[in-house]
Amino acid sequence: MAMHQLVEYTDASPEVRAVYEDIMATRKTDWINNFWKVLANDPATLRRTWESIKQIMAPGALDPLTKEMIYFAVSVTNQCPYCIASHTVSAANKGMTDAMFHELMAVVGMANETNRLASGYQVEIDEQFKKL
Amino acid sequence: MAMHQLVEYTDASPEVRAVYEDIMATRKTDWINNFWKVLANDPATLRRTWESIKQIMAPGALDPLTKEMIYFAVSVTNQCPYCIASHTVSAANKGMTDAMFHELMAVVGMANETNRLASGYQVEIDEQFKKL
Amino acid sequence: MAMHQLVEYTDASPEVRAVYEDIMATRKTDWINNFWKVLANDPATLRRTWESIKQIMAPGALDPLTKEMIYFAVSVTNQCPYCIASHTVSAANKGMTDAMFHELMAVVGMANETNRLASGYQVEIDEQFKKL
Amino acid sequence: MAMHQLVEYTDASPEVRAVYEDIMATRKTDWINNFWKVLANDPATLRRTWESIKQIMAPGALDPLTKEMIYFAVSVTNQCPYCIASHTVSAANKGMTDAMFHELMAVVGMANETNRLASGYQVEIDEQFKKL
Amino acid sequence: MAMHQLVEYTDASPEVRAVYEDIMATRKTDWINNFWKVLANDPATLRRTWESIKQIMAPGALDPLTKEMIYFAVSVTNQCPYCIASHTVSAANKGMTDAMFHELMAVVGMANETNRLASGYQVEIDEQFKKL
Amino acid sequence: MAMHQLVEYTDASPEVRAVYEDIMATRKTDWINNFWKVLANDPATLRRTWESIKQIMAPGALDPLTKEMIYFAVSVTNQCPYCIASHTVSAANKGMTDAMFHELMAVVGMANETNRLASGYQVEIDEQFKKL
Repeated sequence: MAMHQLVEYTDASPEVRAVYEDIMATRKTDWINNFWKVLANDPATLRRTWESIKQIMAPGALDPLTKEMIYFAVSVTNQCPYCIASHTVSAANKGMTDAMFHELMAVVGMANETNRLASGYQVEIDEQFKKL
Repeated sequence: MAMHQLVEYTDASPEVRAVYEDIMATRKTDWINNFWKVLANDPATLRRTWESIKQIMAPGALDPLTKEMIYFAVSVTNQCPYCIASHTVSAANKGMTDAMFHELMAVVGMANETNRLASGYQVEIDEQFKKL
Repeated sequence: MAMHQLVEYTDASPEVRAVYEDIMATRKTDWINNFWKVLANDPATLRRTWESIKQIMAPGALDPLTKEMIYFAVSVTNQCPYCIASHTVSAANKGMTDAMFHELMAVVGMANETNRLASGYQVEIDEQFKKL
Repeated sequence: MAMHQLVEYTDASPEVRAVYEDIMATRKTDWINNFWKVLANDPATLRRTWESIKQIMAPGALDPLTKEMIYFAVSVTNQCPYCIASHTVSAANKGMTDAMFHELMAVVGMANETNRLASGYQVEIDEQFKKL
Repeated sequence: MAMHQLVEYTDASPEVRAVYEDIMATRKTDWINNFWKVLANDPATLRRTWESIKQIMAPGALDPLTKEMIYFAVSVTNQCPYCIASHTVSAANKGMTDAMFHELMAVVGMANETNRLASGYQVEIDEQFKKL
Repeated sequence: MAMHQLVEYTDASPEVRAVYEDIMATRKTDWINNFWKVLANDPATLRRTWESIKQIMAPGALDPLTKEMIYFAVSVTNQCPYCIASHTVSAANKGMTDAMFHELMAVVGMANETNRLASGYQVEIDEQFKKL
């Protein structure tokens, strides 16, 4: 269906092209991945999503690699194949080594396990963990 | 029910006490939080879970604070109240500032959003993201 | 395995054929999609599921297109590829335009984001939102 | 809001009372839990849900306790506090011992962990596991 | 912890006050709910989230009530108590009747069921449902 | 990427071979499935995960087939295609009949439905279900 077509740069409206150019300039790359090409069917969502990602993933109190690994951890938990594939590559491009990937996966796996142990055993929140 | 009771140190078997003591020594603290006190109803699970956590959360290619933030990101995605409360405090104790927490939450929120945009739009994985 | 085979109309028992015929008559179509053909391995589940869907998706206080979009929103949140693909087509067949699809996806994405912001920040429920 | 009120037996319509009576007779109990009292705001959903549960949870190829433990495993994975609390009690009433509960929780925790290891490592399905 | 405090209007910075005023003006209400008061600890996230919500939930190809019900359906699927409570009230304020709520819940429940039937039975996507 | 390669027995280190041999001996089989071959990129995770699975899935208060069905129920709820495919075969190998599979799936589907009915209707936990 039309709503899922990939919008290529050469076929894009000026509004979409402007976002594509900002993506490529910000990421210092010369191609656009399918996620953006599909979102371009809705230029308002394309722009809003890109502006949010650009703001959120920029270096700040956390460095870009840490942010990529957090993004990946959420994507694995949600079982999103596209997001897992793309953020693995993004994290590797930002310096994630094999050793870091293995530790990242170990934490994600363990957290998913203990999340269920805590809820299945109906553990009550300790006073020390309550918000002040 | 008995299976949910908090097992206090003074009432614990030597096997459970040994785990509690290792938790307190490893974490340099003098108390045990409810998660472990409830797991202690099943000493085999208590020991296995603690040994895994101790191994996984130790400093390695990733530092302990990064690991705590990844743990938190998974817990928020899974909506586990106990885990969110406890890992917020753990991360703060390991040096997470307010600014870091805000960026962490922004990434977690955005990843949960774009995970669904990618799957709802049925985006196909780019050749560049496929495993070699 | 046998439990996953597609049960075609010509090979189906009278009990299964009766459900297939009701599906085609209710939906004014001349084919049965794979979901039902696989469920037909268990005629009891086939019948119960179809009877429930038929009752729930019929026009009522909500119109059929609104119901299809809600079905799609759940399927995207759960990351079910079959359900996303089939309900996109069902909704389009019931009148969902591209513009409606884009807004639907924007709401689904945003809700998945703010669900985590609310839980990660441990926001307490306002008195005004509590059940009376 | 009215849609969340508990519908007590004495205030219930004959249609709702008939379902309540069938619940109590089938379960050999003299009270109705809140789940059904709230669903009773919508008699059609009350009846459909009860008829489905009654059919699905009856003894068959699987015994009732095994079914309760499966129900519990799903509820823990989905982090539904009401369902966790109620199905823990139901399973205990059907003979689940503390030892069984501990093993059940260990399996649920481990499955939630390895589900993410499998997807995060992008493991491809072995030919031997593909449907024939 | 400070990161979870409610930021009241009287204590808020001009930047936060500006968002609060826009929320109240857009929603024609005189109070701010806790979600925004907590997000206000991070003015950048407060502003970005509000601007996105304001854009996405405005009338468009879908009417505001339909959008609220979709938001609610996602929140129920994700098991977010705050979001369920707040969006039930929001939807009711926009005209959702008890009958509409009951049908909405029936669709959400059924979709969550059939999502798992489709994946557990490993149903393959019909050619007719594939993207063209 | 290297982190996703299948580590075959002939290329494996002695440490990895020892785990492979224990898997084959424990399961009385002569092949290793992809899950373990990928985990072998991180021998520490391979060993820890196998040791935990071996301990948890052994016969105990619950029999191995019941444990496999619980594993499957979690995997379906989480929508993990690899895990669904592999645990369907594992359960069949341990004696799950078609009739048992159909009942298993019916329970999983129903639990996913009523989990959302309970949370969407904001049902409060009955006193009788509270932990003592």
